Amino acid sequence: MKVYTETITFSTSKRFELVDITYRVEEIVEKSGVRNGIALVFAPHATAAIIANEHESGLIEDILTKIKELTEPGSSKWKHNMIDDNAHAHIGSALIGADRAFPVINGHLVRGTWQNIFLVEMDGPRSRRRVVVVVLGE
Amino acid sequence: MKVYTETITFSTSKRFELVDITYRVEEIVEKSGVRNGIALVFAPHATAAIIANEHESGLIEDILTKIKELTEPGSSKWKHNMIDDNAHAHIGSALIGADRAFPVINGHLVRGTWQNIFLVEMDGPRSRRRVVVVVLGE
Amino acid sequence: MKVYTETITFSTSKRFELVDITYRVEEIVEKSGVRNGIALVFAPHATAAIIANEHESGLIEDILTKIKELTEPGSSKWKHNMIDDNAHAHIGSALIGADRAFPVINGHLVRGTWQNIFLVEMDGPRSRRRVVVVVLGE
Repeated sequence: MKVYTETITFSTSKRFELVDITYRVEEIVEKSGVRNGIALVFAPHATAAIIANEHESGLIEDILTKIKELTEPGSSKWKHNMIDDNAHAHIGSALIGADRAFPVINGHLVRGTWQNIFLVEMDGPRSRRRVVVVVLGE
Repeated sequence: MKVYTETITFSTSKRFELVDITYRVEEIVEKSGVRNGIALVFAPHATAAIIANEHESGLIEDILTKIKELTEPGSSKWKHNMIDDNAHAHIGSALIGADRAFPVINGHLVRGTWQNIFLVEMDGPRSRRRVVVVVLGE
Repeated sequence: MKVYTETITFSTSKRFELVDITYRVEEIVEKSGVRNGIALVFAPHATAAIIANEHESGLIEDILTKIKELTEPGSSKWKHNMIDDNAHAHIGSALIGADRAFPVINGHLVRGTWQNIFLVEMDGPRSRRRVVVVVLGE
């Protein structure tokens, strides 16, 4: 049995942004030496999320539009905004989730043709966003 | 340590549909020989999702109603609809998630009495939807 | 390879509530003896969910407010409410998800500073809510 862990670190440049981390995750899976198992992609952040979907610029805007509609940035109804003006980002992270798991088969990450892996930044810019990847299997 | 992987393939018949795959996932877990561990249920698709919930016909309609309200099929505000008329399905897949994981204890998939496992079709009908199941443990 | 499983049981006291289970999950991870791997936190319930986010009383209210807005408790449009008045809780559990996974590194659960782990009660009070934790690794 093998367990391989690596952390990706990067900065974000906008308040709302999708950062494509697909190729970095795939590299980690290949480096892990795991032939069959799973890869967990996890953001240790309460104001970001992890999603899998198509890397198409229009769609990226659509996903961010929907997240803003859903989480209502700057709304005076959010009590947390009295402390820190980012309740929307916490709500988005909680409901969407900061983890996604993928199969690993024959040494490769399994994903659909249109499933790229993104960190969803909802409270940027941040200088040090991290994504922990755990590859587990044999 | 054991890793067992199997892919379920099926077609969907409607644009929006919940396809119950509980018993096929349970069969795979039993076939895997894994006594204790986890089962990852993963759809390699960007316009479908995986959920766990009750198989009751009224509720199935309710879940699809909510997903449509949330993702707004056919809306002219979605930029991705200029390319392909399915932005709603991508948004639904991204936010709900295409993966769910379950414990495996004593050779059985652990789920609640009212937790059946469904593929959520949001851009059907499709002739070849796939669900990859990875069972991992000892 | 090690697999360690333990179930947390507790009661909830309100219809809508976030129950912080972080320290109980961390204890299980430490007890497991797993140094590196993953921890799956799973609620075998169709009317509850699992999330990770900040334990701040204002934010907790905000998250519950958003879940109620999203799932519309008591709405006459939900067909499932003809059978049992909790369609909202099923919809919330299906969309948010009843599972979250975390890395385990050097014998500790990995989570962000503001990522506590909560069961989301959406149909309480309940006398016997369960959360199954599976720790898997080496």
